[in-house]
Amino acid sequence: MRAETTRTQIVEAADQLFYRQGYEHTSFAAIAEAVHISRGNFYYHFKSKDDILRAVIAARLDARRRMLQRWETEEADPAARIRRFVEIVVTNRTDIQSYGCPVGTMTTELAKLGHPALDEASGLFTLFRTWLREQFTQLGHEAQADELAMHVLAFSQGVATLAHAFKDEGFIDREVQRMHDWLGRYSPAPERAGGAVPDDTTSANA
Amino acid sequence: MRAETTRTQIVEAADQLFYRQGYEHTSFAAIAEAVHISRGNFYYHFKSKDDILRAVIAARLDARRRMLQRWETEEADPAARIRRFVEIVVTNRTDIQSYGCPVGTMTTELAKLGHPALDEASGLFTLFRTWLREQFTQLGHEAQADELAMHVLAFSQGVATLAHAFKDEGFIDREVQRMHDWLGRYSPAPERAGGAVPDDTTSANA
Repeated sequence: MRAETTRTQIVEAADQLFYRQGYEHTSFAAIAEAVHISRGNFYYHFKSKDDILRAVIAARLDARRRMLQRWETEEADPAARIRRFVEIVVTNRTDIQSYGCPVGTMTTELAKLGHPALDEASGLFTLFRTWLREQFTQLGHEAQADELAMHVLAFSQGVATLAHAFKDEGFIDREVQRMHDWLGRYSPAPERAGGAVPDDTTSANA
Repeated sequence: MRAETTRTQIVEAADQLFYRQGYEHTSFAAIAEAVHISRGNFYYHFKSKDDILRAVIAARLDARRRMLQRWETEEADPAARIRRFVEIVVTNRTDIQSYGCPVGTMTTELAKLGHPALDEASGLFTLFRTWLREQFTQLGHEAQADELAMHVLAFSQGVATLAHAFKDEGFIDREVQRMHDWLGRYSPAPERAGGAVPDDTTSANA
C-alpha cells in the first residue's frame, strides 16, 4: 500500500515534469528529486525513464477514460458531451497557454525522438477520436462520424498550439464559440433545454 | 565565399535535424557529422548549438518571407493568397505526416525548454499572422482580420498535429476542403475567374 503510494507519486511528478519541460529534457534524477525519495527506493519502482514514461501514458489514458465516462453519466445528450470536450481548451486554459496540450505535445516529441512508446501515446488521440465518433454516431451522423470527430480534434490541437504560442486571451473564447456554432449544425440546440430541432439541418453539409 | 557556403550548409543541415529529431535531441556533433567538416572548421562558424538555432530561425524567417512575397507577386487576389497558405498542409504533406509543422513543433519544444530563443521562433507565427491579417484586410474584413488570420493559423496547426499523429490520408484533404468552403464566405469566389460576388455575404458572420 505504501509502495503503491510512492509509485503513484513518482508517476504524478513525472507526468507534470514531462508536460512542463518535455520528456527528453526531464532527467531520471529530476523526477527522484521532485518526489523526495532515495535513489534506491526510486529504482525499486522504476528501472528507467522509459518505464516511467509508459506508466505516465497508462495513467493519462486511465484518467481520460474516466473523464469521458463521467461526461457520459453527467450528460444524456451526445451533443452536450462533445461540447464538454470542446470546452477543455477553456477549462485547462492556464496550463495550455503555459505548456500546450499534454497529448499533442507528447505525441509530437516522441515522434521526433523515434521513441517506441509513440504508439501508446497516440492511443490518447485514438481514445478521443473513438469517443467523439461514438457521440456523432449517436447524434445520427454515422456516415460522417469519424470525419466530424477528427475536425473537433483538429480544432482542439490548433487552438492549444496557438494559445501556447501567443497567450492571446480572446482567441480561445472566439474559437470555442465558433466551434459551438459549428456543432449546432449537427445537433438539436442542446443549450435551449427541450428546444426544437433547428430547421436548417441542410446546412450540416456546408 | 567558401566560408559562407560552409555556414549555409551547417544551417541547412541543422534545420533538417532540428525539424526531424527536435532541437534538444540533436547534438552539436551530429550537425558537424552531417556536413562532413572538421570540428575546428565548425567552431569557426558556430560556438554553440544556441548560435546555430538562432541562425536556423533567421533562415526560416527569411525563406518564409520570400515565399509570402512570391505569393503576393503570383496572386493578385488576396483570397487566392490565403488559399496558397491553406494549401501548405497539402504541399508539405509528406514532411508534415513524418515530422509535424516545423514552426509549431519548434515553438512548442522551445517553450517547454524555457529557451530564450522562443520569442524569435514565435516570430514565424507572427509573420504568418500579420500576413494573413493583411490579406483579410484587403478583402474588406479589416475589423475581423486578426481573428480570421488566427482561425486560419489554428486550422493549419490542428491539421498538422493530427496528420502527424494519424497519417490519415483523407483527413488533410477533407479539412482543406472545409477551409476553402469557409474562406468562400469571406471572398468573392476566386476559383471562378471574374466570378460575381456571392449574395450570401450575411453568412460571413456565421
